[in-house]
Amino acid sequence: MSGVYRDDAAWRAAVAERGADELVYWVDDHRYQEGPGALIVGTSTLLPGRIGDEFAVTRGHLHAVADRAELYHCLSGRGVMLLETLDGQSAAIELTPGKAVNVPGHWIHRSVNVGDEPFVTLFCYAADAGQDYAVISDAGGMQNLVVADGDGWTLTANPDHTGYPRP
Amino acid sequence: MSGVYRDDAAWRAAVAERGADELVYWVDDHRYQEGPGALIVGTSTLLPGRIGDEFAVTRGHLHAVADRAELYHCLSGRGVMLLETLDGQSAAIELTPGKAVNVPGHWIHRSVNVGDEPFVTLFCYAADAGQDYAVISDAGGMQNLVVADGDGWTLTANPDHTGYPRP
Repeated sequence: MSGVYRDDAAWRAAVAERGADELVYWVDDHRYQEGPGALIVGTSTLLPGRIGDEFAVTRGHLHAVADRAELYHCLSGRGVMLLETLDGQSAAIELTPGKAVNVPGHWIHRSVNVGDEPFVTLFCYAADAGQDYAVISDAGGMQNLVVADGDGWTLTANPDHTGYPRP
Repeated sequence: MSGVYRDDAAWRAAVAERGADELVYWVDDHRYQEGPGALIVGTSTLLPGRIGDEFAVTRGHLHAVADRAELYHCLSGRGVMLLETLDGQSAAIELTPGKAVNVPGHWIHRSVNVGDEPFVTLFCYAADAGQDYAVISDAGGMQNLVVADGDGWTLTANPDHTGYPRP
């Protein structure tokens, strides 16, 4: 997860404190079938935390087959699904237990834990979707950051974001 | 739902008692996107009940694009996902809140409410999957029935089942 957070010093300090091998985010996924109609189903668990002002995030991705949608259904905790398109649209949807978001195709997406407990989602997407992580790292991160704002969260523009490739 | 239950007299009596316009099963589904990567996400609510020995069921289907898988995640109630293949395989998976089943492609599937409360599932499948209901009605119903057995449920062979077309 090096390079994911803006405040690299705070990230390094957190890793030094916790140890580099402590998991802060894990995915259990299951592929029950091969072929075009198959789904991958699993759970994603993102521990709470902050690196500087930024809440704990997953790496984030666009699907390698970009039109593939993905369902996230919140099982526990409190999080935000941060969504951006290559042409500059942005959305942030708060998820609490029982709420779900269907991430449409062509949207870069990342989970953010804005609560005090593990943020756990059930996810489901086409097994042929794949993940493109470089679209975020090559752009200096996502366009927006989810940062602490009193007891809540807000979006701020990421000054390191250099723009996505045009779709 | 006429013809879905074996005991047609009990079905007609139940309809007469409740009125033909009382909903016993409904689906709220959402299609957020068109195109090959889209998902349909929604909830299915099946009220409890019995028609003769048979527990309340959904109509059941094979996907028209048969290889399309489908996720069902139980939100409330107690149900069974009854699964069969054209070549004679059969499975029945009990679902309680928090449990999920990934129905692989090529499996006919039907929800059964074996509890006393509405059986509610969150479902998710490829938007191009479609539904083939005739595969069940043309075969005289599914191969197995989910029937009451003391306080629980069991499977019995459906004597009206005339066989599925070979795959």
